[in-house]
Amino acid sequence: MDELHFVPRSEFTRLLTLDCPPVPKTEVFAALCRINTLYMIAFAGSGHIGTSFSSMDIVSWLYLNELNTHPPDEDGAGDVFFSSKGHDAPALYSVMIGLGLLPFEKLHELRRLNGLPGHPDVSTPLIETNTGSLGMGISKAKGMALANRMLGRNCRLYVMTGDGELQEGQLWESLGSAANRGLAEITVIVDHNKIQSDTWVKNVSDLGDLDSKFASFGWHVDRCDGHDLGALSEKLAGAKASKKPAIIIADTIKGRGVSSMESTSMKTDEEFYRFHSGAPDEETYARAAEELIERANQLLSGVDAGPLVVEPVARPRRTPPAEDAQRLVGAYEKALVEAGRQNNSLVALDADLILDCGLISFRDSFPDRFFECGIAEQDMVSQAGGMALKGLLPVVHSFACFLTPRANEQIYNNATEKTKIIYVGSLVGLVPGGPGHSHQSVRDISALAAVPDLTLLEPCCEREVGMAVDYATEEASSSIYLRLVSIPCAIPFDLPADYRLEEGRGVTLIEGADAVLFSYGPVMLAEAYKAAESLREGRGVALKVVNLPWLNCVDDDWLRAVLGECRSVFTVDNHYTAGGQGEMLAAAIAGLGLSGGVRVTRFGLDEIPACGTNEEVLRYHGLDSESLASRIAQTLGQGFGEIPNQEVTG
Amino acid sequence: MDELHFVPRSEFTRLLTLDCPPVPKTEVFAALCRINTLYMIAFAGSGHIGTSFSSMDIVSWLYLNELNTHPPDEDGAGDVFFSSKGHDAPALYSVMIGLGLLPFEKLHELRRLNGLPGHPDVSTPLIETNTGSLGMGISKAKGMALANRMLGRNCRLYVMTGDGELQEGQLWESLGSAANRGLAEITVIVDHNKIQSDTWVKNVSDLGDLDSKFASFGWHVDRCDGHDLGALSEKLAGAKASKKPAIIIADTIKGRGVSSMESTSMKTDEEFYRFHSGAPDEETYARAAEELIERANQLLSGVDAGPLVVEPVARPRRTPPAEDAQRLVGAYEKALVEAGRQNNSLVALDADLILDCGLISFRDSFPDRFFECGIAEQDMVSQAGGMALKGLLPVVHSFACFLTPRANEQIYNNATEKTKIIYVGSLVGLVPGGPGHSHQSVRDISALAAVPDLTLLEPCCEREVGMAVDYATEEASSSIYLRLVSIPCAIPFDLPADYRLEEGRGVTLIEGADAVLFSYGPVMLAEAYKAAESLREGRGVALKVVNLPWLNCVDDDWLRAVLGECRSVFTVDNHYTAGGQGEMLAAAIAGLGLSGGVRVTRFGLDEIPACGTNEEVLRYHGLDSESLASRIAQTLGQGFGEIPNQEVTG
Repeated sequence: MDELHFVPRSEFTRLLTLDCPPVPKTEVFAALCRINTLYMIAFAGSGHIGTSFSSMDIVSWLYLNELNTHPPDEDGAGDVFFSSKGHDAPALYSVMIGLGLLPFEKLHELRRLNGLPGHPDVSTPLIETNTGSLGMGISKAKGMALANRMLGRNCRLYVMTGDGELQEGQLWESLGSAANRGLAEITVIVDHNKIQSDTWVKNVSDLGDLDSKFASFGWHVDRCDGHDLGALSEKLAGAKASKKPAIIIADTIKGRGVSSMESTSMKTDEEFYRFHSGAPDEETYARAAEELIERANQLLSGVDAGPLVVEPVARPRRTPPAEDAQRLVGAYEKALVEAGRQNNSLVALDADLILDCGLISFRDSFPDRFFECGIAEQDMVSQAGGMALKGLLPVVHSFACFLTPRANEQIYNNATEKTKIIYVGSLVGLVPGGPGHSHQSVRDISALAAVPDLTLLEPCCEREVGMAVDYATEEASSSIYLRLVSIPCAIPFDLPADYRLEEGRGVTLIEGADAVLFSYGPVMLAEAYKAAESLREGRGVALKVVNLPWLNCVDDDWLRAVLGECRSVFTVDNHYTAGGQGEMLAAAIAGLGLSGGVRVTRFGLDEIPACGTNEEVLRYHGLDSESLASRIAQTLGQGFGEIPNQEVTG
Repeated sequence: MDELHFVPRSEFTRLLTLDCPPVPKTEVFAALCRINTLYMIAFAGSGHIGTSFSSMDIVSWLYLNELNTHPPDEDGAGDVFFSSKGHDAPALYSVMIGLGLLPFEKLHELRRLNGLPGHPDVSTPLIETNTGSLGMGISKAKGMALANRMLGRNCRLYVMTGDGELQEGQLWESLGSAANRGLAEITVIVDHNKIQSDTWVKNVSDLGDLDSKFASFGWHVDRCDGHDLGALSEKLAGAKASKKPAIIIADTIKGRGVSSMESTSMKTDEEFYRFHSGAPDEETYARAAEELIERANQLLSGVDAGPLVVEPVARPRRTPPAEDAQRLVGAYEKALVEAGRQNNSLVALDADLILDCGLISFRDSFPDRFFECGIAEQDMVSQAGGMALKGLLPVVHSFACFLTPRANEQIYNNATEKTKIIYVGSLVGLVPGGPGHSHQSVRDISALAAVPDLTLLEPCCEREVGMAVDYATEEASSSIYLRLVSIPCAIPFDLPADYRLEEGRGVTLIEGADAVLFSYGPVMLAEAYKAAESLREGRGVALKVVNLPWLNCVDDDWLRAVLGECRSVFTVDNHYTAGGQGEMLAAAIAGLGLSGGVRVTRFGLDEIPACGTNEEVLRYHGLDSESLASRIAQTLGQGFGEIPNQEVTG
């Protein structure tokens, strides 16, 4: 089936003007929004279905019946709702679109450049705060509440959290002062769908007695079925009446609304929930859409309204990854198991990303040496510190965007103990561009570069991943941060057969005398390589392309030899230009005092990364091969004209 | 009175060989250790008395009666005790010295180079883990416990925490999995002395019902008077018998043992506790020592032992700060009040360092615009984010060592919202050298340099502080990180009368053509300036000395003009060389492509900062003026001989 379906604006108008009580009206509204959420994610090709569906009834209820921000207040002084977990953004967008709070055509622009970001961003109208990095929501709401009080505004703040999110320490850190200050205008709703990224919360890191935990922090606590809008309405009224800040634990079902996606439909031997992120396949989509439409029609008929009209859209064609695309995380998964076989002291720690970080094989091979820490990066890193002090070799995993800034002080504290720990950050760099800046790790080099005795290393292909794991586990005497791109990558270059990792030394991929181009990793090195090829073929400019996987160190002798007589240098970072490898390299070159005057031009990210398809995002930032070729040529004075960046962003 | 007194080793030997029951023996032991703790801090000139005294009975009891690490296990497989708060290190040291676990002469080496660090460090024998940055202790112990289990070791782990420390989110983050994994070998003792850095915990950020909080996280919870060793012994036995990890809330008195230092002696109108950190003055010392010795004698007589013999030591003479020394935090305090007068939207947030961050005047002037957040940096920073979104201008304060890495992701999240927030990190740089590396903020530039639209700025004198506050509050359109040295500094240079702050541009303090020397801030700029003066006077080398207060940006045109024809450049960072201002500058110079070949030599910290007096530490790292002059001369090929670093460290 090659069509997707969405509920058009006219159907929302029909529903919203119906004269019927709030509960059934909101139920129909949520049913329509589920259809559109499924559509948005299928159309975009990625997004979080399970959590969007579990929160849908709650978000719909709040927007239709609680918030005074509909219609929106121009001065930002209205009631506030936001989701602290943030990955339920498609649910929120579909509600806002259904209510006319966002332009309807945005329905087709999820995770696109200038569209609706993968996680909430304040650049979207009426989005209150940027979320996607977990645990910050209640703190943010407290700040808003205090500001509102100071500015004489009287409005309520609703924050939705996940349940896996409750493993984050900041969330508990934020509770005390809210109670002490009596911030009763804050109501937190826990979307307690019992499943975090991959599997059941109780198996990842059980939350224990949530009611009693929250109550012990001085909050008003209540609990209800999060899909029973009557009950929710009552509990919200209770929260409003309380003199304390309130938490409502809403028991929900992940994937609610599509039977095959509902967590309750999981078989007893089924470990992993399949609809946390990513788009459904064609058949799953078709059956899910059919079920959702049928359910909407039932509900419509319950309020004496005619059946639903949906609009078809052709399913967008997507180019699948090249057949020979390399998967670095997959290579890492294999290499880690091999390293575990070689070293009985090696243990792996994970923060609820066992699938994405490639850890299933290790866990299955060495169940006693695998530690699932939950969404608790600080705790995980300090635990690794304790393990290292007692003689183990901990390998610590998460997405780089969470591991390196959230546990930044803990990583430093470990480093001051001079133990050896391996940190592995995946999902690094600008792409995938869909999730948005909370997940694009483009600041981790800077955040870790000055940690003493921590060497930063990013492999550019599956083979180099194996070498990097060997180096980190066997050769390195101190700690290593391994930076892993997660998307499948077509690799246009080959590493020489005799290439070996030596700290601070890279390898030349193409010889050339006009300029030297340094990069690293599968994304930017591939773009740099293609740029060099096109400059050579198109313009006869001969760039030497060098892979330097070491991100915070370079060997001066090697560097001098690589530069030779060449005095034009380019660097390409999959990272902010500030604090990236290019800055380190440029400073090292300045330290060599080469005669004749070298010029180092650095390419990288110079603003907050855009959200969009990978191609859109690379091009927007002038980091695709074509833009790079043009920018290099321009710098070399070859007169290729303007760089394309402005044209695209215009 | 010009003498200090300590209890010599022979007296500990006498006590430890006495045949008497554990409770009175430990009471005498603790009494002796209090005398030595007071001595160590008075001799060192700084240290944390209050918290050392509140924890002394507990630490003594554990070492004398619970831990099997006495005598120590060579293979690190014995019971573990450590203090997560860490600033009670003098108490721990005095106990270890009293028991012969550390060389006795270390008593005279608190906070000295190669002595006993201000906060625990694993370089000291039997110190289990590095602490001083709060909230990590239980996580560390969990990692150790898991490693012990894997390695077949059967031993117990005791962690002491503070009570103010319980405001840190990581502490709560760490509780859940300890209970889930049944880590019953861990016993946590809260030294609940009711006072955090400056004042009462209940006034800073009340902890609420601690018993019920801990119990709700699935821990065995008990409570006793932390100075009643019989009761403590019972509770520890209960913890040992429990199948759950256990927490004992030990109600203690800050400053216990010296009546004038006991928190219970504070008058009702007295807001601040005076003995959290810093050495007592001569008179206070004398009376305190007298009282402690009298109490020890009472206890000794109670176990039928003769009176105490103490040994005198001349009080070391310390050079007071120069009369005209500048105090940047004091200047900041005044400037912030003035800025608050100009801007009603300006609010100040603090993380339990109201005195050290210079915030009393602001709070007293604008009580409704001051927010005490407690030791909860992540929560504070995200609250500031919420406030900024709702229209306020938040100014966020803490020691830089905690603010910038602990809340690193939160600062980035705020930045992605493109609001304006001012972050003020004090206690920056290598000195004071006494507290040790947990408090020496020498990585903050790197950790923040790549945050988009965040400008890093470090003023070099009181006048530039005023300019920086004006710039941050009035001129800057985006966020600012203000980096403040906390020690009083003699400033050998003057800023030109017409100097104004312009982003990315600095000012020349001395003209010279042989090389250009860039630095910033009162500590390193003063050393650099003195180095330049000595090179000019002693060797006729003419250095141009430039103050560049901008840490992560430089204006290319200005830079080109400042360099002129000069091709030798030096940078001096009060920070790790990696990721410091020098790296940014060197990269910028490499980007200019100047003809003739520039050589940039960067000085900064190349290893974990040493603990010691300020002079010791600067010299150890080759960053005092003399070492700098020598290193510069060496680089310029003037033949000054070897740099002195090795001689000192040897």
